[in-house]
Amino acid sequence: MAEHTMKAIVQMLIDALGAESVRCGDAIEPRYLGDWSGRSTVAPLAVVLPRSTGEVATVLRLCNGARQSVVPQGGMTGLAGGAIPSGADICLSLERLVGIEEIDRAAATMTVLAGTTLQTVQEAAQEAGFEFALDLGARGSCQIGGNLATNAGGVRVLQSGTARDQVLGLEAVLADGSVLSSMNKMVKNNTGYDLRNLFIGSEGTLGVITRAVLRLKPRRAARNTALCALKDYDGAVALLRSLQSTFGDEIGAFEIMWPEFYDFGVSLTRLRQSPLGQAYPLYALIEQAGFSDDHGERFAAALNAQLEAGVVLDAVVAQSQAETQALWAIREATAELPVKLEPINFDVSLPIGEIGHFVHACRKAFAARWPTHYGLYFGHIGDSNLHVTLDARSIPGVTVEEVDLALYGMVRDYSGSISAEHGIGVLKRPFLGYSRSPAELACMQAIKHALDPHGILNPGKVLPAAGDRNARSEQGTQ
Amino acid sequence: MAEHTMKAIVQMLIDALGAESVRCGDAIEPRYLGDWSGRSTVAPLAVVLPRSTGEVATVLRLCNGARQSVVPQGGMTGLAGGAIPSGADICLSLERLVGIEEIDRAAATMTVLAGTTLQTVQEAAQEAGFEFALDLGARGSCQIGGNLATNAGGVRVLQSGTARDQVLGLEAVLADGSVLSSMNKMVKNNTGYDLRNLFIGSEGTLGVITRAVLRLKPRRAARNTALCALKDYDGAVALLRSLQSTFGDEIGAFEIMWPEFYDFGVSLTRLRQSPLGQAYPLYALIEQAGFSDDHGERFAAALNAQLEAGVVLDAVVAQSQAETQALWAIREATAELPVKLEPINFDVSLPIGEIGHFVHACRKAFAARWPTHYGLYFGHIGDSNLHVTLDARSIPGVTVEEVDLALYGMVRDYSGSISAEHGIGVLKRPFLGYSRSPAELACMQAIKHALDPHGILNPGKVLPAAGDRNARSEQGTQ
Repeated sequence: MAEHTMKAIVQMLIDALGAESVRCGDAIEPRYLGDWSGRSTVAPLAVVLPRSTGEVATVLRLCNGARQSVVPQGGMTGLAGGAIPSGADICLSLERLVGIEEIDRAAATMTVLAGTTLQTVQEAAQEAGFEFALDLGARGSCQIGGNLATNAGGVRVLQSGTARDQVLGLEAVLADGSVLSSMNKMVKNNTGYDLRNLFIGSEGTLGVITRAVLRLKPRRAARNTALCALKDYDGAVALLRSLQSTFGDEIGAFEIMWPEFYDFGVSLTRLRQSPLGQAYPLYALIEQAGFSDDHGERFAAALNAQLEAGVVLDAVVAQSQAETQALWAIREATAELPVKLEPINFDVSLPIGEIGHFVHACRKAFAARWPTHYGLYFGHIGDSNLHVTLDARSIPGVTVEEVDLALYGMVRDYSGSISAEHGIGVLKRPFLGYSRSPAELACMQAIKHALDPHGILNPGKVLPAAGDRNARSEQGTQ
Repeated sequence: MAEHTMKAIVQMLIDALGAESVRCGDAIEPRYLGDWSGRSTVAPLAVVLPRSTGEVATVLRLCNGARQSVVPQGGMTGLAGGAIPSGADICLSLERLVGIEEIDRAAATMTVLAGTTLQTVQEAAQEAGFEFALDLGARGSCQIGGNLATNAGGVRVLQSGTARDQVLGLEAVLADGSVLSSMNKMVKNNTGYDLRNLFIGSEGTLGVITRAVLRLKPRRAARNTALCALKDYDGAVALLRSLQSTFGDEIGAFEIMWPEFYDFGVSLTRLRQSPLGQAYPLYALIEQAGFSDDHGERFAAALNAQLEAGVVLDAVVAQSQAETQALWAIREATAELPVKLEPINFDVSLPIGEIGHFVHACRKAFAARWPTHYGLYFGHIGDSNLHVTLDARSIPGVTVEEVDLALYGMVRDYSGSISAEHGIGVLKRPFLGYSRSPAELACMQAIKHALDPHGILNPGKVLPAAGDRNARSEQGTQ
């Protein structure tokens, strides 16, 4: 696009929203340029900061008319490059659409603007006597609109589902500026197509989410935590299903750690030694949370029965908040991965029964190809979600692309998903065809074209941009 | 379409599938003509009975090429005319795609063909030690494909969600015959657009569902049932939220009955008298189902506390299976509505806090307009779902259309939904614009056109058929 055209577009936006709402050049702060993936970035043409759904609609209407690409932005905590601009894009930040419009106690809903942080939503729900079930590490920075655009997962999915499951109503602005307001408060509503779930998880490529009606859940009374030693992965699955048959969705976390990861986690704790005394083949960190506080009696009894049955080899049940935190500290060593290693991270999902075999196959393949490799395996197994981290320093000369190809190739062989909870963005786009068929990709392209015919919304994210022939071939053939 | 063209299409289908799989004229059994709405029907051009996804694809490919309309059919238990053919349609029955392909105990999933009945799915889940959470009265006849195509609700939505929430993976055939296989078994999978939820609830207008991966849940140990007398609707909502804060999703049913309905129900029971001794302003039938059997002790204690607090005026807790059935018999008097009355039925949803006001407003408006009217109000209040039945015999000379206009007009005023769980089909299509905005309807039309450009799939259901100008104006203006 010629420079004078770009200037004209920026001037048009300034005329519509006022100079204070449009940032260019040096006035663009670094936080609009990159996300938590650490991918290198460039400055966009401009950043616009609308103050209302109406202003979002104005920006999109003008940009659509000028065929100007727009990148919607939330808290920029993503890990797949889904909100990173190119130099020719306009960034549309939702950060000024902030606030809780209503808490409806009878309906158990909260109506909220897209730029509100997850933590603000959680705290408001808590104050109103409810719980907002979505939780993840970036809670203080990430915005609810971004959580929905990426269908965020996190640490309570086993109990309450992903972001998708926390939503009853949605307002989104389409590429042409039309406002799609489906601010439904009802649990049951079968009036035509489910547009809500189409926008959730589409990473800003089909519309810009501006408001939502969120579901609130009753608060749980107490959370009990245990660390269990297990003999193998099949035993872990048996334990999960057994505990669920006793506690249902009171089982809120079921985190499996393979020894390499467990040892890494333990080495970073204050005591630097395992609470279990000796080494075991596999470890499970389990949380049970009911609505009445029985001081963990039922949970301890259930674990004792599993000990006696030989499913659990040893177990530590936290007796205090401090002990709970000490157990979680092992699992939360993930925060130290970028400090202690040069991590190549994966967020994949597989049928729950296959994860043990998959880890075994990965280890074997990596050991054969890269004998010096250091790899960590852990995950939200109850959600079918496995995280794999390889330390790039242990395999000098090997590129990230080589590791991507090797691991995603195995994911494809196991009918798994190349993205469990982080989305596709740009970083995983070359591999989308590993998890979705050509017919599915063609269907997604048809929907994209129907809702955004000029391809102005977040082009090149999730799907190749219209006219990008190289990128288009990547999904069909790899 | 000229008669020789129609004959050519039928011959083409016979050539492809064999004569035994294509029924015409007198060979078409009445069950393919109508559903449980009782709407009058005509015979279609032909009924085809494919035996595989491949044959479904063949039928659609051929019909799409010939611009021949196709009406997908399941168990024909719908209430909105969503599977009823016109004389120019080909019916595509899924009844031969029957069977459970796999139960994956580790993943807690069941892979099933679309024509399998809901009851078969439920029983297979039970035998495998799990529960399939969807349940509704038509379980013996309805097919899982139809349940998904209409996003069926039923009696466990409060606990486990609608049909949508029971699905991890889906296979659907598009209008052009391409097979979209998204047979995902993972709980977390963020790889592009959520096509699954687009097909679920679209009533066969976007694709034909042929297979699904269903979620299985742990089995609940015991179900405790109580009938409570309440002083008003706000008290009912307070009771619901209080019980949920104690029991979470163990509260599996919360059915509210206004006195007219309750008295109707009681009059049909064996004893013909209320188990509560005297009349009250409102009644709640409540079910609590945990994973451990405490013989109803916690439930009884919670209800006692509500009695002492004055929220519950009186209560009967069932002490046996027979007593449970006797309490449910009052609520299940709905089965007798078509026998005892000439019912005009409504299935609407409203924000939970508004339902009491809505019932009051309905009663007042109907009494003013039709002083002789006899109306019943009841519903799954925890799901925001209200059922209203008017006896046509009590308002002689008044048409169904007049009652529709009056009631749906009030639903619109309350920002409610004209269909909570029965879908739109053809019967509710004129009123879809009461619950969805012009922008939403335009978005649905764009998606319909993108996936079915020739409009061959179930034309005129949910949305007006392409080119149907009269019908198109109905949604924008009414």
